[in-house]
Amino acid sequence: MNTIKGGEFLIKEIKAEDVFITEEFTEEQQMMKDAVIEFIDREVWPHKERFENKDYDLTEEVMRKIGEMGFLGVSIPEQYGGIGMGFVSTMLVTDYMSAATGSIGTAYGAHTGIGTMPIFLYGTEEQKMKYLPALTSGEKFGAYCLTEPGAGSDANSGKTTAELTEDSKHYKINGQKMWISNAGFAEVFIVFARIEDDKNITAFVLDYDKDNPNGITLGEEEDKLGIISSSTRQVFFNDTIVPIDAMLSERNKGFKIALNSLNVGRIKLGAACLDAGRRIITESTKYANERIQFKTPISSFGAIQKKLADMSTRIFASDAASYRAAKDIQNMIDAKLAEGKTHEQAELDAFQEYAIECAIIKVFASESSQMVSDEGIQIFGGMGFSKETPMESAWRDARITRIYEGTNEINRLLTVGMLLKKAMKGSIDLITPAMEVGNSLMAIPSFDTPDFSEVLSEEKAMIEKLKKLFLMVSGKAVQTYGMDLDSHQQLILCAAEIMIEIYVAESAVLKAEKVAKLTSEKEAEGQIAMAKLNLYNAVEKMNTVGKEGIVYFAEGDEQRMMLMGLKRFTKYVNQPNVIELRKTVASKVIAKNEYCF
Amino acid sequence: MNTIKGGEFLIKEIKAEDVFITEEFTEEQQMMKDAVIEFIDREVWPHKERFENKDYDLTEEVMRKIGEMGFLGVSIPEQYGGIGMGFVSTMLVTDYMSAATGSIGTAYGAHTGIGTMPIFLYGTEEQKMKYLPALTSGEKFGAYCLTEPGAGSDANSGKTTAELTEDSKHYKINGQKMWISNAGFAEVFIVFARIEDDKNITAFVLDYDKDNPNGITLGEEEDKLGIISSSTRQVFFNDTIVPIDAMLSERNKGFKIALNSLNVGRIKLGAACLDAGRRIITESTKYANERIQFKTPISSFGAIQKKLADMSTRIFASDAASYRAAKDIQNMIDAKLAEGKTHEQAELDAFQEYAIECAIIKVFASESSQMVSDEGIQIFGGMGFSKETPMESAWRDARITRIYEGTNEINRLLTVGMLLKKAMKGSIDLITPAMEVGNSLMAIPSFDTPDFSEVLSEEKAMIEKLKKLFLMVSGKAVQTYGMDLDSHQQLILCAAEIMIEIYVAESAVLKAEKVAKLTSEKEAEGQIAMAKLNLYNAVEKMNTVGKEGIVYFAEGDEQRMMLMGLKRFTKYVNQPNVIELRKTVASKVIAKNEYCF
Repeated sequence: MNTIKGGEFLIKEIKAEDVFITEEFTEEQQMMKDAVIEFIDREVWPHKERFENKDYDLTEEVMRKIGEMGFLGVSIPEQYGGIGMGFVSTMLVTDYMSAATGSIGTAYGAHTGIGTMPIFLYGTEEQKMKYLPALTSGEKFGAYCLTEPGAGSDANSGKTTAELTEDSKHYKINGQKMWISNAGFAEVFIVFARIEDDKNITAFVLDYDKDNPNGITLGEEEDKLGIISSSTRQVFFNDTIVPIDAMLSERNKGFKIALNSLNVGRIKLGAACLDAGRRIITESTKYANERIQFKTPISSFGAIQKKLADMSTRIFASDAASYRAAKDIQNMIDAKLAEGKTHEQAELDAFQEYAIECAIIKVFASESSQMVSDEGIQIFGGMGFSKETPMESAWRDARITRIYEGTNEINRLLTVGMLLKKAMKGSIDLITPAMEVGNSLMAIPSFDTPDFSEVLSEEKAMIEKLKKLFLMVSGKAVQTYGMDLDSHQQLILCAAEIMIEIYVAESAVLKAEKVAKLTSEKEAEGQIAMAKLNLYNAVEKMNTVGKEGIVYFAEGDEQRMMLMGLKRFTKYVNQPNVIELRKTVASKVIAKNEYCF
Repeated sequence: MNTIKGGEFLIKEIKAEDVFITEEFTEEQQMMKDAVIEFIDREVWPHKERFENKDYDLTEEVMRKIGEMGFLGVSIPEQYGGIGMGFVSTMLVTDYMSAATGSIGTAYGAHTGIGTMPIFLYGTEEQKMKYLPALTSGEKFGAYCLTEPGAGSDANSGKTTAELTEDSKHYKINGQKMWISNAGFAEVFIVFARIEDDKNITAFVLDYDKDNPNGITLGEEEDKLGIISSSTRQVFFNDTIVPIDAMLSERNKGFKIALNSLNVGRIKLGAACLDAGRRIITESTKYANERIQFKTPISSFGAIQKKLADMSTRIFASDAASYRAAKDIQNMIDAKLAEGKTHEQAELDAFQEYAIECAIIKVFASESSQMVSDEGIQIFGGMGFSKETPMESAWRDARITRIYEGTNEINRLLTVGMLLKKAMKGSIDLITPAMEVGNSLMAIPSFDTPDFSEVLSEEKAMIEKLKKLFLMVSGKAVQTYGMDLDSHQQLILCAAEIMIEIYVAESAVLKAEKVAKLTSEKEAEGQIAMAKLNLYNAVEKMNTVGKEGIVYFAEGDEQRMMLMGLKRFTKYVNQPNVIELRKTVASKVIAKNEYCF
């Protein structure tokens, strides 16, 4: 079991044996995966058209069936009606559950995540016994009422109030919530409201009974760009009375609950982009193999091969990062349990520990999902623009993943913000390695030609250099602006980009290396090529944003020195032949007629 | 009047006085622009919701009003019912006509472009007199029937047949056409069909009368991702009888007509992306100035400013390139007319001359339009995903611009293909300058520090270096693969990217310089910043694709030498501070509360 803490990937060398890959699924996990795929192929994919026509009833119906299959309680312990399979399993079910339509992906994700987890993590034993069995069986569904018209990214600014009644036995809730997923069929609401002039909001869990609405009314279904059959409504609370024991955790703790719920939500959202992406690649490959233009299948054209390779690379890298982090989280949960912590506390600690990685995965996987469906449309040409093929709905559905669970901009800012907070609290030492990098910039670089004969060894060396690049840029940024760094968002975004690319690139390289070890270099040829391609793209991006940052905060000799450092830290000894690498990857999916990594 | 021929921008130094910018619109053009904007604001923008709900009748109704306003015949001479205003005016009407919805943009573009122009350019006097007055007044509308289920990018492979009848006085047309814009209300069809075993297809122009359909039937309206109220149907021809004088131009000439129609269609499509983009930027700016989070308008955040600046930069650069090429085309038309050519032949010659530029503008502007609407959604956050705001429809509408008039992949391949064809025909000399670049690579570079005190002088020097980069990469590619270059599409795409970025970056720099000359450096601060930002992005992209290409086709010492050349040709003496540049641009739009360049 590895002991890499959250954020430490930036300062430690990670090895292939330290990361988990999906090829290591247990037999039980493999069966679970097959069961979910079978379910989606039977109950969702064939009804794609209905999902694109606002068939909210179908979403509810499928969600009930998902409950019957036991898929709603993967992460919930058995005493509350779940199957307690652990976090990697939770991730894989989320992954394959989202393959066919974002409507089900969202309904599933919202219910099992923000609709259920706060009760498990923060509820009293009574609250858990009252709600969790119904929520895991699919008898009832949950909805999470946080966002308000005036409180989106700034979630703690909500205007919904909770007022203690005169008898001190109840709270009276008043307010307007919006963008509430599953609102149309949920019967359990987690609601955030402010008590008096509290600094922070407070969470409540309450029942909603259509026949006895207790001041709760629902808005119309929102008319949305995508996830068309996912129910999204406003929820209005008008003197809604709840007993005082409906409070979740303590007064003023709502904002913390909200933030912690988002951590786990983010990494699961990343997982929810994966099989959707794999399917789009498979459908695109099939089409490219079948579609004849200029007397040959269009898959024979370099322009199409480039797309298939780039699409596969993004999903491969997202997959590598998602499951690596999932297993790190699971390992920490297990360690905390071994220390004697409760299951709930162990999970909370673990999600918070890896909050940076969760945000990274959310950003990278959601943008991959958008890119993959976008290229899918382009491969289908005119047909990609038609509702007759599954490309356009995938593209629309992918769009929301860059907005909800915190926009990708907020998540980017958070990656850096959370890291600096960790550094300030002393839970990660960035200063020592940053100073070492600073000193090494003055030193004469080695002119020895390194031995890169071993597979992916140059890539691993590159990743270590990229970590130095991150330390150089972020160290200097902090030194220059100190607490005022917050007001230099463009600079923070540069650092965030570097951090995100490092984590994902490292995950992809280590996954490819591990696959090669488990099989052979020859069999892992595609994975190795994708790891190299992804790293190349990462290096190019870091070069660009690195320069942006350095030119912004450094001048004269210092700028020159840092630009030299940037060059050194991003320099390949052997420039990869990315066109050949793409051909290698494309040849695999074209031959198999599907995504096959 | 400048004498830069098509493609020559790659080998000649262009000056600000050689390019036209929209600030130079004549009074008549300015009035035309105002009239179109007024029309769109009155007749289209307020009905946005209806356009997003398959209101095909509204599209037809608005198109008839556009006809009444005289906007359908901008480029058609007066004797055929038009107003004969020339190509820059045609572009500006197309530009502002497409601002509110792609449904009207497409209906207008398809009718005035491919639905009308082939008749003007290739028709007999009788055909012109018969069709053009009705098509320019809006009494009738035209549709262009080229694409078939099996013939998309490979347009000349269509299976529709035209068979001479026994009396040799008619042709009998049979076949299936798809993705036919305006089919639902068109009464004039331009149809491409093959006679016997001809190598190329042949064009016909015919009437469609609902009450006497002559074997023509229409499919249902296609269910599409975007341009929802643009009519798009299949058209079936079943023993449709047309007189032999319905043939447009000559037998076997249809493919040439199709290709030439696309040249002008492409640059006009580029124009159709511009005001749509400007409006999205304005709407996004307004929202960012109004939306309060964390107690401040979100426009005060660097992450939002970055978006507004990048969006503005893409549209500014697209605008600069579009109108520069438009005026070059107009100049060549005027020159050909002065030589005594007919108006039709003058236009055909000019569009063909600048076919490369037309393809470049199509690619860059369509991708800008996608990027701008995508960032628009992100600025609006959750509201961007709602059909209540105009972001999501702009995003969907933009998506088709990357597919029709030739996918952007086909257009990229074409830019390089057409250039090499010109070089082989001797109409442009690439070999001499390419050899000069080759020799200069061996020479010792100058270590003098150049004088870049004049505004944009470093940028102009950079553009000259980038042209050398293009010559180095494309020259070597041709030398290595010769006629086999076609089978290395990924490499062609690298060269295409460099070519596209050079043209657009040069256009943006020269436009900014000219604006500064017309006003002052201070007043042109935003334009100058955008020209710099756009060039920086271009240089970064060229660096990446340049490396890809070089590593693919060169090895050992040669590769090293060329990578050195790449470095030299993309090196700034003064690295631009792009974060500050973005702040400058954003501050302008935020202060004006609209796109203001």
